[in-house]
Amino acid sequence: MSEEKTIDRSEVENLLKRRFFYDQSFSIYGGVNGLYDYGPVGCAIKSNILNQWRRHFILEEQMLEIDCSILTPEVVLKASGHVDRFDDFMLKDTQTGECFRADHLIENHLEKLLEIKEISDEKKSEMKRILPQIGNMNAAGLDQLVKQYHIKAPNTNNDLSEPIAFNLMFSTTIGATGQVKGYFRPEAAQGMFVNFKRLLEFNQGRLPFAAAQIGNAFRNEISPRSGLLRVREFTVAEIEHFVDPMDKTHPKFETVADLEIQLYSANNQANGESTQLVRLGDAVRSNVINNETLAYFIGRIYLFFTKIGIDKTRIRFRQHMSNEMAHYASDCWDVECKISYGWIECGACADRSSYDLNQHIRFSGQRLTATRQLSTAKTILVSEKKINSKAIGQSFRADASKVMQYLQNLSEHDARSLHEKLQQAHEKIAIDDKEFIVTTAMFTVETTENIVQVEEFIPCVIEPTFGIGRILYTMLEHNFKVRSQDEQRKYFTLPPSIAPYKCAILPLSGNAEFKPFTKQISDLLTQAGISYKVDTSSSCIGKRYARCDEIAIPFAVTVDFDTSLQPPSIAFRELNSMKQIRVPIDEIVSVVQRLSTEQTTWTKISTMYPMFTEQQNRK
Amino acid sequence: MSEEKTIDRSEVENLLKRRFFYDQSFSIYGGVNGLYDYGPVGCAIKSNILNQWRRHFILEEQMLEIDCSILTPEVVLKASGHVDRFDDFMLKDTQTGECFRADHLIENHLEKLLEIKEISDEKKSEMKRILPQIGNMNAAGLDQLVKQYHIKAPNTNNDLSEPIAFNLMFSTTIGATGQVKGYFRPEAAQGMFVNFKRLLEFNQGRLPFAAAQIGNAFRNEISPRSGLLRVREFTVAEIEHFVDPMDKTHPKFETVADLEIQLYSANNQANGESTQLVRLGDAVRSNVINNETLAYFIGRIYLFFTKIGIDKTRIRFRQHMSNEMAHYASDCWDVECKISYGWIECGACADRSSYDLNQHIRFSGQRLTATRQLSTAKTILVSEKKINSKAIGQSFRADASKVMQYLQNLSEHDARSLHEKLQQAHEKIAIDDKEFIVTTAMFTVETTENIVQVEEFIPCVIEPTFGIGRILYTMLEHNFKVRSQDEQRKYFTLPPSIAPYKCAILPLSGNAEFKPFTKQISDLLTQAGISYKVDTSSSCIGKRYARCDEIAIPFAVTVDFDTSLQPPSIAFRELNSMKQIRVPIDEIVSVVQRLSTEQTTWTKISTMYPMFTEQQNRK
Repeated sequence: MSEEKTIDRSEVENLLKRRFFYDQSFSIYGGVNGLYDYGPVGCAIKSNILNQWRRHFILEEQMLEIDCSILTPEVVLKASGHVDRFDDFMLKDTQTGECFRADHLIENHLEKLLEIKEISDEKKSEMKRILPQIGNMNAAGLDQLVKQYHIKAPNTNNDLSEPIAFNLMFSTTIGATGQVKGYFRPEAAQGMFVNFKRLLEFNQGRLPFAAAQIGNAFRNEISPRSGLLRVREFTVAEIEHFVDPMDKTHPKFETVADLEIQLYSANNQANGESTQLVRLGDAVRSNVINNETLAYFIGRIYLFFTKIGIDKTRIRFRQHMSNEMAHYASDCWDVECKISYGWIECGACADRSSYDLNQHIRFSGQRLTATRQLSTAKTILVSEKKINSKAIGQSFRADASKVMQYLQNLSEHDARSLHEKLQQAHEKIAIDDKEFIVTTAMFTVETTENIVQVEEFIPCVIEPTFGIGRILYTMLEHNFKVRSQDEQRKYFTLPPSIAPYKCAILPLSGNAEFKPFTKQISDLLTQAGISYKVDTSSSCIGKRYARCDEIAIPFAVTVDFDTSLQPPSIAFRELNSMKQIRVPIDEIVSVVQRLSTEQTTWTKISTMYPMFTEQQNRK
Repeated sequence: MSEEKTIDRSEVENLLKRRFFYDQSFSIYGGVNGLYDYGPVGCAIKSNILNQWRRHFILEEQMLEIDCSILTPEVVLKASGHVDRFDDFMLKDTQTGECFRADHLIENHLEKLLEIKEISDEKKSEMKRILPQIGNMNAAGLDQLVKQYHIKAPNTNNDLSEPIAFNLMFSTTIGATGQVKGYFRPEAAQGMFVNFKRLLEFNQGRLPFAAAQIGNAFRNEISPRSGLLRVREFTVAEIEHFVDPMDKTHPKFETVADLEIQLYSANNQANGESTQLVRLGDAVRSNVINNETLAYFIGRIYLFFTKIGIDKTRIRFRQHMSNEMAHYASDCWDVECKISYGWIECGACADRSSYDLNQHIRFSGQRLTATRQLSTAKTILVSEKKINSKAIGQSFRADASKVMQYLQNLSEHDARSLHEKLQQAHEKIAIDDKEFIVTTAMFTVETTENIVQVEEFIPCVIEPTFGIGRILYTMLEHNFKVRSQDEQRKYFTLPPSIAPYKCAILPLSGNAEFKPFTKQISDLLTQAGISYKVDTSSSCIGKRYARCDEIAIPFAVTVDFDTSLQPPSIAFRELNSMKQIRVPIDEIVSVVQRLSTEQTTWTKISTMYPMFTEQQNRK
C-alpha cells in the first residue's frame, strides 16, 4: 500500500510520452481529444496482453473467436437499443454553443463547492450524498441540479441549456446513394449475437459455448479526458458465453471456488458498507453472486488481471446498483482497479440474460434459438393455418392478396383465437382502414398433438468484457518503479510475457570485435521468434541500461571483452535486481525463451549460472 | 498448372460458407454488400497469417510497429490528397437514381459485345484495345465511351448520367457540436507519416528505419463484389521504410538477389510482351527495378507469400503504368496472384518518394525531416530576420500587428529578397488590399556563414502493403483439394503454421474409457499454448476426419482401444496423406509443437514412429 501513495502520476505519464508508449494522435495538427496512437513499446505490450488473453480465455475454454465488421447498419443497433438509448446528457453554453458532459460538469461544480469553507456542513453532506448518484441521473434530475446550484458555463459564465440527450455513436452512410445509414460499432458484442446461429451450428448445436472477439469500438465522448481512460476509439475484448437459462452451473467452477476476491455488492454499497473479501464458492452459496457461471468468469477475470501484472490488492468487483445497469443487463459486476485516478472500471462481467437474442428475433424475424433434450418426452400442440385462397379471391377480388397476407402473418396465438371466433360466427377484420368479413370457409387452424424429445429456448448470455487501453494503463501504473539510489532512473517491472521486447542486446562499446557476436545473437533470437532490441549507440553502458529499463525490457545481453573467451558467453542482466550472470552464447535462446514464456523465473535461472561482477579480460 | 484449371470456385466458396470461414455480415438482416465476418476458422487463419507477417517482416527487420487511430480528422486526409482525389466515377440511372461504378459498367458492356457474332472483327479489336484502359480513365474518357457505345442502365435501360466523381471515404463528425469533420481511414499509412518525428526519435535519429502497422481500413466501394476481393472494410498490413533518397542501397540485398521472380514491367505491358522470369540482382542491374531497397522488399514479399502457402508459380509483380499510378506514388509494383477470378492484386510495393512527408510539412508547418552526416563539413548561409516593432508601430499604428505578422511569415528566400530591395529603396507591400511602405529601419535580414557537419533532408518512403483478406482467399484457393477417391471429400493443405487449429482430438467413440485420455491430451496442449479442436460428437470416425479436413486441421490425434496399452499412445494422422503413425501420449505436445512451428515436417516425423494401420486391441 505504500507504493500506491508514493506514485507521482505526472512522472509515469511523462515517461510514457517521452518513450512513445502512446501519445495523442495527429498532434502535428494539434491533435484530437480522445484519440491516441500506440508507439512501438505500447503496441507490443498491447499485443502481448491480447495474446495472453487469447491463451487464458479462448484456448482454455475452447471459445469461438470471430472477427466481425466494425461498420454496422442502423437496424442492428436499433434492435440492440443503441440508437434509442446509448446517450449521454450534455449542457450547451447558450451563447457560444460549447458543449459539456452534464454529469461531469455538475460533479466538478459540487466538488469545488465542497472545498469552500463558508458552506455549512449540512449543505456539504447533502452534496456528498448527491455526488455518487449524478452519473445515473435522467434529464430532469440533472436539470434540477443545474438550477438548484445555479451552475453556469465554465470560462464564460453564460447560462446553460437544459440537458440534451446526445447519442454516442459515430454515424455515416453506406453505399454511393447514401441510402443506408450506418454506425461504427460502440461495442463488439452485437457481431456475436447476429452470428449466433452460425456459431451454434459450428459448435454442432451444443450449448454452452462462448464466442469471443477482439477489436476496436468507437464512442463519440462529449468530453474525453484522463489519457487512455476516456477515449473515442478503443480496443475491446469481449466474450459472450451462451448458456441454457435452466442450468447456469459451471463444470470448472471448482477450479476457482477457493479464490478470495474483493466484492463490493449492490447491498454493500446501498448500506454504506465497504468491500468484502469473499471466497467465490461462498459468494455463490450465499447468493451474493447469482450463479456459478457468472462467478466462474469473475474468478477467471481476476486470474487474468493478476497474471498480466496488475496488483491483486488493488482489484475489486463492484456490482451495479439497479439504477446504473445498462439497458441490456440483468446483473453486472464491474472489475475495478485502484490507480492514481481512483477506482476505475477496466472491464465487467454482465448477465445480459436473453435480452439481445430476443431483440434480434423481434427485429429480424429469425429464430435465434437453441434446443435442449427433454428428460421425458412431452406433448405439444402444433398449429397449421389452412387458408383457402380460392374463397378469399372470390370474395375480395383486388384486395384478396392483402387479406391473404394478413392471415399468413398472424401469430400462432392470434390465429388460434381467430379460428375459435370463426367457429361461432364470421369475423370482421380491419386492414388499412377497410373491413373484410372472414368466414370458416376462408380460414381455419388445424391443431395436432406432437410428441417431442427436445424443446426450443432462447439462450442466456454471460458477458465478460475488457477495456484493453485501461488495463494497459493500470498495469503500467502498478508496475512503475523508481530506483531508490537514483530518482532519475525510472522503470517498469512487467511480467516477461507482457514485456514489449524480451531482451536488449548491447555491445559494451563500438569496438569492432563485438559486432559479429551482436549479429550472431540477433540472428539466433530472430530465428527463434523472440523479440529484442539492439542498442549500438555510443552512450555508455549504464545509460543504455537505463534506457532499456525505461521501456520495460526485462533482460539485457551485453557483449563484452570476455565474450571472446572460450566458451563465448555474455553478461545477462535482470532489470529489477540489476544483477548479472554469465551465460554461454549457445544457451541464450533457451534461457530467454523459458523466461519470457514464464516456464522459469529469474530466481531459478540466476542460481544456474555464475554471478558476474567484472570482466576478466579488460582491454 | 493442371490444378489451376480444375478448380471449381463455387465448391470452394460453398465450403468456406458452410464451415463459416467467413460469411456476409448481418445476414439475418439481409446483409450489407462488401462487409464480411470471419468465423472461428477464418479468424484463426487470419490471425496466424498476421503472426507470420510480424515474424517475417517486423522481427526480421526490427521494424517499429505502431497502432494508430482509425478515426482521422479531415486536415490529415486533405494533406494526403485523399479528400480531393480518392474518387471512383459512378454513373447514375437518371430515372431511378441507382448508382453504378462507371469502369465496371462499361467493361461489362464491352465484354458482352465481344460475344456477339454479328460484330465485326475490326470493331472487336478496337474494344479489346480499349478494355484494359478503362480502369484508369478520367470522366471525359468514360463519358465518351458511354455515348459511343450507347450504354444504358442495366435492368431498366434508362439513360445514364455523366460520370460523377464519388469520394470513397466514409465520413463522420467528431465531438458533440459536430464541428470537426472526420473520416475512417482509407489506408493505415498516414498514421505512420504523422508520427514520423516520434519514430525517428525512438530510433535515436537514425535512418533507414521502417514503421509497420496492421489494422482496418474502410472504403465506401460503389459496387462491392467478388467475395473478399472488393469489400468496404478490410485489414491491411503496411510498412513505411524511411530512407535517405541519396542512398537506396540495402545491406541485406544479397540475401534476395538470387531469387527468380516473375516481373511484368510497364515496358513489357506497353509493348504487349509477357512477364519475364528475372533474377532480382539482374533486375536491379538492368534498372528494371529502380533500386536495391525496392527490390529487397519485392523479394521479401515473394518469400512471405510462398511461406504462407501461396503457389509460387502463380505470383507475379506488375509495375504500374504511368497513368494508373496513385497520386502519391512515383513507382509501384503490384504483387498479383492468379486465382479463379484472374490475376488479382494482393499487395504492392510502392515508392512514395517524399510525397507524404512533404505534404504534411506543408499542411502542418512541422519539420518532418532527418539529418545526414556530411563527409566533409560545409558552409551554409543562415539568415535571421530583424524586425523593428517600434518603428513599425509608429508608422502603422492599428495595422502594425498585421505588418509584423506578414514579415514574420516571409520564407527565407522572400525575406532575403525583400532585404535586398530595401537596400536600394523603400518597398510597398500589400496586405488585404491595403498598401504599406516598408523601410530598412523596419526590416533587415542578417546573414551569417555557419560551418556544419550535418544537413537536413526529407526522407523517401518505400512502402510494401498487404491486403490480408485477398491474401487469405488466394491462399485458400491455392490449397483447396478434392480426394481423388471421393469427390465429396474436400480439404485444404495449409502450412501448419497457418492452419486454424494445430490438431484435432477425436475419441474413437463415446466409450467412457476414452474420456480421461481426451481430457489429458487437451490439458497438455492447452498448457503448451497449442490450439486444437475436440470432436466428441457421435458421428463415425471417418466422418469426423472429413469434418476436420474441411477446416484444414493438419493433424488428428485419435484415442482408441490401444491407447490404454503401455505406454499409452494415440493414432496420429496427417491430413493430406491420411497416413497414421503411433505416438506415445508423452510425446504428443512436442511432436505437434515442432510440426506446427515448422521446425520439422510430417515426412521426417513419420519415419520416427511406427506406422499405424489397425488396433491390436479391438473390443
